[in-house]
Amino acid sequence: MARPTALSGFPEFLPGQRIIEQHLTALLQQTFELHGFGSIETRAVEPLDRLAKGGEDVDKEIYLIQRLHADQDTGSGSSGEAGGARDALGLHFDLTVPFARYVVENAGQLQFPFRRYQIQKAWRGERPQEGRYREFTQADIDIVGAETLARHHDLELPLAALDAFARMTSDLGMPPALMRVNNRRLAQGFYAGLEIDDVAGVLRVVDKLDKIGPQRAHEQLVGEIGLSDRQAQLCLSLAEISAADTSFVDRVRSLGVRHELLDQGLDELAQVVSAAAEHAPGRMMADLRIARGLDYYTGTVYETELAGFESLGSIASGGRYDSLANDGKIDYPGVGLSFGVSRMLVPLLGQGYLHATRPVPTCVLVAVDTEDTRSDSMAVAAALRRRGIPAEVAPTAAKYGKQIRYADRRQIPYVWFNAGENGEVKDIRSGEQLPADPNRWCPDDQDVHPRVYGDWEPQTSG
Amino acid sequence: MARPTALSGFPEFLPGQRIIEQHLTALLQQTFELHGFGSIETRAVEPLDRLAKGGEDVDKEIYLIQRLHADQDTGSGSSGEAGGARDALGLHFDLTVPFARYVVENAGQLQFPFRRYQIQKAWRGERPQEGRYREFTQADIDIVGAETLARHHDLELPLAALDAFARMTSDLGMPPALMRVNNRRLAQGFYAGLEIDDVAGVLRVVDKLDKIGPQRAHEQLVGEIGLSDRQAQLCLSLAEISAADTSFVDRVRSLGVRHELLDQGLDELAQVVSAAAEHAPGRMMADLRIARGLDYYTGTVYETELAGFESLGSIASGGRYDSLANDGKIDYPGVGLSFGVSRMLVPLLGQGYLHATRPVPTCVLVAVDTEDTRSDSMAVAAALRRRGIPAEVAPTAAKYGKQIRYADRRQIPYVWFNAGENGEVKDIRSGEQLPADPNRWCPDDQDVHPRVYGDWEPQTSG
Repeated sequence: MARPTALSGFPEFLPGQRIIEQHLTALLQQTFELHGFGSIETRAVEPLDRLAKGGEDVDKEIYLIQRLHADQDTGSGSSGEAGGARDALGLHFDLTVPFARYVVENAGQLQFPFRRYQIQKAWRGERPQEGRYREFTQADIDIVGAETLARHHDLELPLAALDAFARMTSDLGMPPALMRVNNRRLAQGFYAGLEIDDVAGVLRVVDKLDKIGPQRAHEQLVGEIGLSDRQAQLCLSLAEISAADTSFVDRVRSLGVRHELLDQGLDELAQVVSAAAEHAPGRMMADLRIARGLDYYTGTVYETELAGFESLGSIASGGRYDSLANDGKIDYPGVGLSFGVSRMLVPLLGQGYLHATRPVPTCVLVAVDTEDTRSDSMAVAAALRRRGIPAEVAPTAAKYGKQIRYADRRQIPYVWFNAGENGEVKDIRSGEQLPADPNRWCPDDQDVHPRVYGDWEPQTSG
Repeated sequence: MARPTALSGFPEFLPGQRIIEQHLTALLQQTFELHGFGSIETRAVEPLDRLAKGGEDVDKEIYLIQRLHADQDTGSGSSGEAGGARDALGLHFDLTVPFARYVVENAGQLQFPFRRYQIQKAWRGERPQEGRYREFTQADIDIVGAETLARHHDLELPLAALDAFARMTSDLGMPPALMRVNNRRLAQGFYAGLEIDDVAGVLRVVDKLDKIGPQRAHEQLVGEIGLSDRQAQLCLSLAEISAADTSFVDRVRSLGVRHELLDQGLDELAQVVSAAAEHAPGRMMADLRIARGLDYYTGTVYETELAGFESLGSIASGGRYDSLANDGKIDYPGVGLSFGVSRMLVPLLGQGYLHATRPVPTCVLVAVDTEDTRSDSMAVAAALRRRGIPAEVAPTAAKYGKQIRYADRRQIPYVWFNAGENGEVKDIRSGEQLPADPNRWCPDDQDVHPRVYGDWEPQTSG
């Protein structure tokens, strides 16, 4: 086998990095379950006709799958062209499309509102770049109702996400997150109050505001969308409003635009922001330039940035959709948020921002005197494991110095000598060696499993 | 959206079933880590030229992936035919091929012997049937050396697997497993001692012995492979030998065949079986008809059956390979075992053999008096979560009876009333309702998280 090289866009981790990923996904899982979200997994593939509805940009990124020698089996002379077969399958490019299908397929066996999380890989054949991969892990939480879904879930969901981010900072040393929230109705009502027809066009320009700046945005709104100077100015004034409390309401009102949908949007957004100010102070703000490109969002929309890693873009995004799915009889409205696990983790690991205390699970290496007594060492390891202490037996009955080096290279903290009940255990970091009974001895609590820590240091606050 | 139907061969679980799967994979993960195996994950895709070496039967099952509109992007008029492109990618059909590639790709950054586990999905486009799926989860453990790997790992590995099976029975109530082990050298040496040339042909017939019976096997050995009557009889006599201890050695010797490779195989197999008799009595036996079809096994081979589910075939298989990979300079010998998670779980769940105590993670539903006091209920839920108790807030401020029914339908054991420090908590199974402080109250230990139990009852042993 020639030495293979990595495939661009398909990141893989070394064992020590994988430990960090395991800690992050376990933290997400635990937090989601504390908030009453249950796990599902869906198959990796969906029928192509369900996938290819995301718009041109997304459609061309879909990976189609087909059997290598499919033609030989069917014996048909069909073109074999991608997408030609009616039952063609593609890899899912997010977890929302498969979840919508799962809800409709299993609606009779689910309890609504249905709360689920889903941590899985997805695939997009796009050009790889920082924060964008061809294979990536997402972690989604959604609450879905049958026919109706109460408005208060719009604040419950980001609070669960902010709880997860707070734990990422406190438990893993990841940088703190700031969530930015807006409401589609607010912008739509504002534009309607200004008698603007091309709402989608305005949103598209506003969505680029950070990149192109207010001057070019104004030019495009007037030149391409056909707004008047005053309309364009008011749209940009709206987009400039942000606040960590409900003060944004008065600032919007002061622009003098009136519309029923605007009132509704302002009210919904104020509820979300004031709940966050009470339950997660300082971690969410209203930001009226957040647009979210996807058409299916109809109310609240969320984006999230990691402090110091703003260039990655949003690492947890989502929103309210009045119709996630429809089975011909009823609509399933929902609200959801998707964490970009790979989008966060690949850069943080690449920059060496997060660390594991060791790259292996093993806490104790049980040394071997001679191959004849290996069985005794195996019994010691088994006794340790019965009490939850990860242990492995040395691969060779080499000199003790060599066995200690084996542990040292793997950062295994303890080496056990002299099998049986009268053993001794050495902490190879301090060199301390003490008598120990394999049925009683305990390592330091923080040595049992590898731990993860990050470079982020909490600032001392006022 | 028309109501979708399940895709044959792509099993998905309902939330309650998924809890059982989560418990099983967590158990495997914990056991593997206790034995010093570290986790890795590999990308889902490999270059087609690495995948398409498994022999004709496997090759035609490979799923090739390609971008839906790949032709438009490259602008080339290439045929677009599957497998035409030199950089074609396919979905991995097992975890061994990607692991071998990972070892060679990262050899400079790994410590050998390298111990890894890997729990991931794999894909095969084969005809779906019980125990065989187009998408399935495998859990692999391997130990790989650089240039050499000591023989004792052949017994370490199955002991780790048997530890996992013992926990599946004690912790999840799954049926007990029996591992059957053989050694390729033993059979090869035996056939060489009989001066049989077509070793692969004999193994192929012996592998079918269970299906076709000894008489047809004898006919095929004589008629198709060209053995003499005596040769065929001795091959079948060898295949009939099985034992839970090393008594099989004398039974093989009594057949009167002599060869150096046979001696080596007998010695290796005796070591594995006697170690298992000492460290995991009654759970492994030598069975000299186990052949394992795959060419890369060179020594010990393993298969595993679940009691009462023998018709599923082996649910944990593997063996020793002298060259898992080669990077042009050195060989990487290894020994590995692969658990068929889907192969075990889909039938056990389909038959209702395993159960979760509830289909949701939530332990406490916090009731809501009025929408005006929802924030108080949210604070109670947050206090419970801070102490690790999964809690959700009722979706509507309906009458208490309706809120209790919401919990009951989801089998949530507790409902919390009257937000604030003077709350009351009701066990809705017993009806008992007691005053409780959200910062102090604890549910029964066994109610905090859903538990999993199975129908298997341990037999009282003599």
